[in-house]
Amino acid sequence: MKHLLSAADLDRDAALSILDEAARLKEALLGREVRKLPTLRGKTVLTVFYENSTRTRVSFETAGKWMSADVINVSASASSVQKGESLRDTALTLTAIGADALIVRHPASGAAQQIAGWVAPGGAGPSVINAGDGMHEHPTQALLDAMTLRERLGGVEGRRVVIVGDILHSRVARSNALLLSTLGAEVVLVAPPTLLPVGVESWPVRASTDLDAELDGADAVMMLRVQAERMNGGFFPSAREYAVRYGLGPARAARLGEDVVVLHPGPMVRGMEIGFDTADAPSSAILQQVTNGVHVRMSVLLHALVGTEGNPE
Amino acid sequence: MKHLLSAADLDRDAALSILDEAARLKEALLGREVRKLPTLRGKTVLTVFYENSTRTRVSFETAGKWMSADVINVSASASSVQKGESLRDTALTLTAIGADALIVRHPASGAAQQIAGWVAPGGAGPSVINAGDGMHEHPTQALLDAMTLRERLGGVEGRRVVIVGDILHSRVARSNALLLSTLGAEVVLVAPPTLLPVGVESWPVRASTDLDAELDGADAVMMLRVQAERMNGGFFPSAREYAVRYGLGPARAARLGEDVVVLHPGPMVRGMEIGFDTADAPSSAILQQVTNGVHVRMSVLLHALVGTEGNPE
Amino acid sequence: MKHLLSAADLDRDAALSILDEAARLKEALLGREVRKLPTLRGKTVLTVFYENSTRTRVSFETAGKWMSADVINVSASASSVQKGESLRDTALTLTAIGADALIVRHPASGAAQQIAGWVAPGGAGPSVINAGDGMHEHPTQALLDAMTLRERLGGVEGRRVVIVGDILHSRVARSNALLLSTLGAEVVLVAPPTLLPVGVESWPVRASTDLDAELDGADAVMMLRVQAERMNGGFFPSAREYAVRYGLGPARAARLGEDVVVLHPGPMVRGMEIGFDTADAPSSAILQQVTNGVHVRMSVLLHALVGTEGNPE
Repeated sequence: MKHLLSAADLDRDAALSILDEAARLKEALLGREVRKLPTLRGKTVLTVFYENSTRTRVSFETAGKWMSADVINVSASASSVQKGESLRDTALTLTAIGADALIVRHPASGAAQQIAGWVAPGGAGPSVINAGDGMHEHPTQALLDAMTLRERLGGVEGRRVVIVGDILHSRVARSNALLLSTLGAEVVLVAPPTLLPVGVESWPVRASTDLDAELDGADAVMMLRVQAERMNGGFFPSAREYAVRYGLGPARAARLGEDVVVLHPGPMVRGMEIGFDTADAPSSAILQQVTNGVHVRMSVLLHALVGTEGNPE
Repeated sequence: MKHLLSAADLDRDAALSILDEAARLKEALLGREVRKLPTLRGKTVLTVFYENSTRTRVSFETAGKWMSADVINVSASASSVQKGESLRDTALTLTAIGADALIVRHPASGAAQQIAGWVAPGGAGPSVINAGDGMHEHPTQALLDAMTLRERLGGVEGRRVVIVGDILHSRVARSNALLLSTLGAEVVLVAPPTLLPVGVESWPVRASTDLDAELDGADAVMMLRVQAERMNGGFFPSAREYAVRYGLGPARAARLGEDVVVLHPGPMVRGMEIGFDTADAPSSAILQQVTNGVHVRMSVLLHALVGTEGNPE
Repeated sequence: MKHLLSAADLDRDAALSILDEAARLKEALLGREVRKLPTLRGKTVLTVFYENSTRTRVSFETAGKWMSADVINVSASASSVQKGESLRDTALTLTAIGADALIVRHPASGAAQQIAGWVAPGGAGPSVINAGDGMHEHPTQALLDAMTLRERLGGVEGRRVVIVGDILHSRVARSNALLLSTLGAEVVLVAPPTLLPVGVESWPVRASTDLDAELDGADAVMMLRVQAERMNGGFFPSAREYAVRYGLGPARAARLGEDVVVLHPGPMVRGMEIGFDTADAPSSAILQQVTNGVHVRMSVLLHALVGTEGNPE
């Protein structure tokens, strides 16, 4: 694997190879006194974030450092963008400095893909990892979600995963719909009609606007963050009505069986899309997702920069 | 020692253990070609700063790196706070990522204490080090001040330390009053009446509003930074009058004996609370304080993350 | 070499020593699986940037990390400057923390020189590397340009280098004029009359306002970034007229021989000072400059912090 731009890049074998390696890395490091592997020593990993994100940047930085990479952070606010430099020139410059991998977060859908075309046209340049591009994709989030479902449910195949919320604007939903389907899950997207993407019929999922009808038979429920700034546009009556109809409040949480896994990509707005206590219940895997994020990203960096034995690519 | 939240957490033995180790570390590293110890290799230290502070963040980052820790900086401006995440959820997320220590600076008094309760409820989570919480405490500052007084005066016990300025809003004053008293010093707080905290009678110190009366017999004088934004509230006539009555200008500095140590936690506003030349005189220990800050923080990290032989805890 | 404050500090031997070492480092690291040397292990390098610059900061950070230094970033926005601390006190504080080198970028001409005087008055303090001070100098940029010219042209001596654009405000032009002259090049500065510095007659260069007349016989052309904010002052008719008269557009680029090297310090504004395609043509050495920047900065850090065998200093 050279780049990771979209969950669609991963066929079943490639996805399982990353997930298996992530599980091995977690097992190997867990409870160790010294969490440090020499695997990426002498590799230069740049995080290039045009949007703020504590959790994703810190997770990638931790993943790189635990494998002894040199990790260097580049943020847009401090970048040459302000001086009129194009995204392409910034990417080529960071490549010329000597990056082995560019971890890219950008508000424009498709930015990571474009960068990969620019910096590694013949396959010789750095690896590009998409850490979230606009409303498009966030593939390492989908991988950490899949890893968490494997740990909680023993596997993903045949499981029913209900993804709830602002599907339209969510790169998390899109990457999960693709990856979980590839891994054999049944994915159901639930949203108000105005927050379902046009063309969702062509996705490998089922779409619905009725949360209560979909909770029965669910093995996992993934609640998405509601972006408050999108609640002002008049497309939906009010934040309160959203919480009532699409939030996982106490009543709905009580209806779920105890072994139904509750996921959330964070950051959460408690009291809105998820109840104040629901996120802390035993069925919540939210912090487990965060922990798995580091190991999934270690595995992705390993696959991209070193390759793995037995990996046919 | 699991956390360091308040100078009040440290009894005499615990404080001396940290100070002795800091002195050993300073001795061991001084003049070395390679200032690098393997002590914290494989440990992950996160600086989580909700307020800007060059000197404190860089000091902690240096301390961690000189002991080979992976140090990762998280600043509030780039954080999920902006997306509505609670402080508790941010702290739990950083813990789930794999932090061994959280170095926390926050504008709210008590923030570090709260975080410690959240992330390590049964003692199993990361260590929390308070790097300044609102107007409450800044315990590593007090430790580096104590270390500096030991070096300059041969000890703290029985010495008279006069702390001057905006005591009311100063976490530095509070932590020093507690720690220096624990170590047997006589602490005198000097401030305009409006800048003395209510209830100061219950502190283990003496309070005064007359600087000149208190300088006689002082072994050390600690000048606090005047926060200009607080001079506008009308509680005090003017910045100029402040400098005249509570500043350590040339006349007062000349009255002090040459062996009276002058301290300042920085950043200084020369010409206000301290004279332009006073800070550079031989009696000033201000840069020595900065140097000692790195060694004290190394010692604190060592006590929190590894423990020390002979440490009964 | 203790500091690198100005290209004028470097005589021919000192400049060649840095350039030769940079070439050796590039050769040694190129194509290596593990780009990591132990050379600066245990050294603490602080980047202290009062102006934003992705490329320069990341380049220095990469240079330091590839030689195993502890690199710590300090930015002005997060600094004590906001609290009223003077530049001198900030520099002395960072020195007291334990810096072995301060890499300084500052909007004021002469800032690096001042800092060197403050932090290392008797030669005992940290090395200061000027990473750009106001309109004054940017010596590592001149070194990387010289390195690139050596690679492309086989040497600098006797070559004619035409530097084009806003010479008046350009620290890049100033450092290059000095260094390339020291190395025996013939330097020609081309600018609109209002953008030539007063006193340019005393520089070791020739000045001109006619770009087309100067392109014949040039071995290299260095295009400078046009700072858009300076185009509003009325000193020059318009951005479009600038591009027509002083830009390296397609027509002028076609006139140049294929072996005339095109340089640009970046960030570029394509379509303004340089044509959209010109920057990507084979004659362009723009990304090679970026790559060489890392090796030149490694060499500078090595000379400043360790010294080199055979170096007479």
